[in-house]
Amino acid sequence: LDGKGFRTPFLVFVGEVRTAKTASGVFDWAPDECCAQWRLSPQALDLGLPEARPAEAVKRGARSLLIGAAPLGGGLPASWIPALLEAIEAGLDIVSGLHARLSEISEIAVAARRHGRALHEIRRDEGETKIASGRRRTGRRLLTVGTDCGVGKKYTSLAISHALRARGISTTFRATGQTGMLIAGSGIAIDAVVSDFVAGAAERLSPDAPEDHWDVIEGQGAILHPAYAAVTLGLLHGSQPDVLVMCHDPTRTEIASFPGFPIRPLPETMELYLALARVTNPDVRFAAVSLNTSKLEEPDARRIAADMTAAHGLPCFDPLRFGLAEALPVIIGRR
Amino acid sequence: LDGKGFRTPFLVFVGEVRTAKTASGVFDWAPDECCAQWRLSPQALDLGLPEARPAEAVKRGARSLLIGAAPLGGGLPASWIPALLEAIEAGLDIVSGLHARLSEISEIAVAARRHGRALHEIRRDEGETKIASGRRRTGRRLLTVGTDCGVGKKYTSLAISHALRARGISTTFRATGQTGMLIAGSGIAIDAVVSDFVAGAAERLSPDAPEDHWDVIEGQGAILHPAYAAVTLGLLHGSQPDVLVMCHDPTRTEIASFPGFPIRPLPETMELYLALARVTNPDVRFAAVSLNTSKLEEPDARRIAADMTAAHGLPCFDPLRFGLAEALPVIIGRR
Repeated sequence: LDGKGFRTPFLVFVGEVRTAKTASGVFDWAPDECCAQWRLSPQALDLGLPEARPAEAVKRGARSLLIGAAPLGGGLPASWIPALLEAIEAGLDIVSGLHARLSEISEIAVAARRHGRALHEIRRDEGETKIASGRRRTGRRLLTVGTDCGVGKKYTSLAISHALRARGISTTFRATGQTGMLIAGSGIAIDAVVSDFVAGAAERLSPDAPEDHWDVIEGQGAILHPAYAAVTLGLLHGSQPDVLVMCHDPTRTEIASFPGFPIRPLPETMELYLALARVTNPDVRFAAVSLNTSKLEEPDARRIAADMTAAHGLPCFDPLRFGLAEALPVIIGRR
Repeated sequence: LDGKGFRTPFLVFVGEVRTAKTASGVFDWAPDECCAQWRLSPQALDLGLPEARPAEAVKRGARSLLIGAAPLGGGLPASWIPALLEAIEAGLDIVSGLHARLSEISEIAVAARRHGRALHEIRRDEGETKIASGRRRTGRRLLTVGTDCGVGKKYTSLAISHALRARGISTTFRATGQTGMLIAGSGIAIDAVVSDFVAGAAERLSPDAPEDHWDVIEGQGAILHPAYAAVTLGLLHGSQPDVLVMCHDPTRTEIASFPGFPIRPLPETMELYLALARVTNPDVRFAAVSLNTSKLEEPDARRIAADMTAAHGLPCFDPLRFGLAEALPVIIGRR
């Protein structure tokens, strides 16, 4: 990550947030880049790293404060501003995946300038804003999609990328969210792109490639999500995937944080994804279902995976629990 | 429009563009606000207004230059900059619906400041950026949707608003594009909203209203459009429409400007819209099909409308050619 313009290791800041996806994602996939954590509440997510405020973290070698939590909507809680100022004054850069622009908070901008510290605002798409062309690109593409947010799209994409690469298949993980970008060191925060240009940004994210190369693209949101489906659909169209992998938590009955919005049945949801994806790739197909069984005991998880494999005629696996070896031949079309 | 912060009448600028939707839309619906046109090429769209450069237009009473054309993608052609400077120097404000920010072109910003002229950049959403809540709002909502761009969604929405109001039904036209906003004097340029917030912006556009009030919301893009579907879906979810009206050009076989991308059959497209719209309003229904028959002779247009009425069991009309009286009872659910 150091080569990507960020100074590491990170002091991982989680505020008072209990489920901090960026913090846990970066810690899972780049633990060596994290040297300490800073929690504003005893209830906040505990990564098991040493606790340190900025001055102490600097002594342990920290070079940047990573904002590891994103409140709903990506705004900046005013209560965090003193914490960010303390970090800047202690000599840390700030790495932020929030929508809110830190550089537009004048105290933060002034402090960063005075102390010569960098503000890396990775959710801002600095690239050209272009509408999508729809042009078919060379190479193969896999996109993870889901029945909700937080069901394992990023984890599944990373696990599939690693597994393909381990088999000697040329593969690039394409990050579309701030956590994935921190892990990969590049990508586009697709939910921060102006809606007219989302599909165009997704086209730019996975450019022409050799015919046997796979881009594994991190999915976002869900097509039947009341707030985020626009992001999902623009990414789906611009990615023009050859292969979709459905990510699903079988214990969830409602969209997370949206009580009263049911998760629709998988076959219906998969048919909808295919109908929409065919706009830019008529040959798109589902290759697997990736289950998040973290809330189930192992026997139940195995039974559900077996039942779903039979029901959908596709490999159904939990990449974290069972691995995904049996799915790979289907994904690359060599079953 | 004068009350909305714009100084009118407009000098309508079309550059060298042949199909200038903003120019023709504003001229159709607010002709009294347009006093002259300025074309940079004899091939450009001709509204039939007197030709005038800025100095001459000011003598005819013009107060603002309206950029009446939006090149693909909403960028600012560099060739227009001298024209805009000439307008500012002649004493005109600028009203722009482009994505490109005029105030970030330093010569334009400097000239506007020096001459005390306003730059109205109406495509920038200055409101709060909030994710959608999905909360059901009071009042009734109609949204126009389509099989493509430029098939009559704005015209149909305006025509339905006028017809409902003429029947004494409390109605508000909700504009979602720069042309509609110029006609209505308010609205949100939905395609300029960051994708994470599109559905939230659409919620804000049509707030709670009395139970018998209708918001008629201008649709954007098309759900099977390779570039703009993200805009369409966020607007669909945030609008939580009770009623959809499908807009369609029966002579079109491919998406405009996207050769090789077919227009899918109407029933399939309508079923897809309903499946997605049910996320935020399970009772959503189609009430009519609005045809753009401008490329057909009258007998053919009448025959196609009759055939489609029979096929879909819904009133099918061309609002410009035949009016829409027979559709109104179905729209408001009093057939």
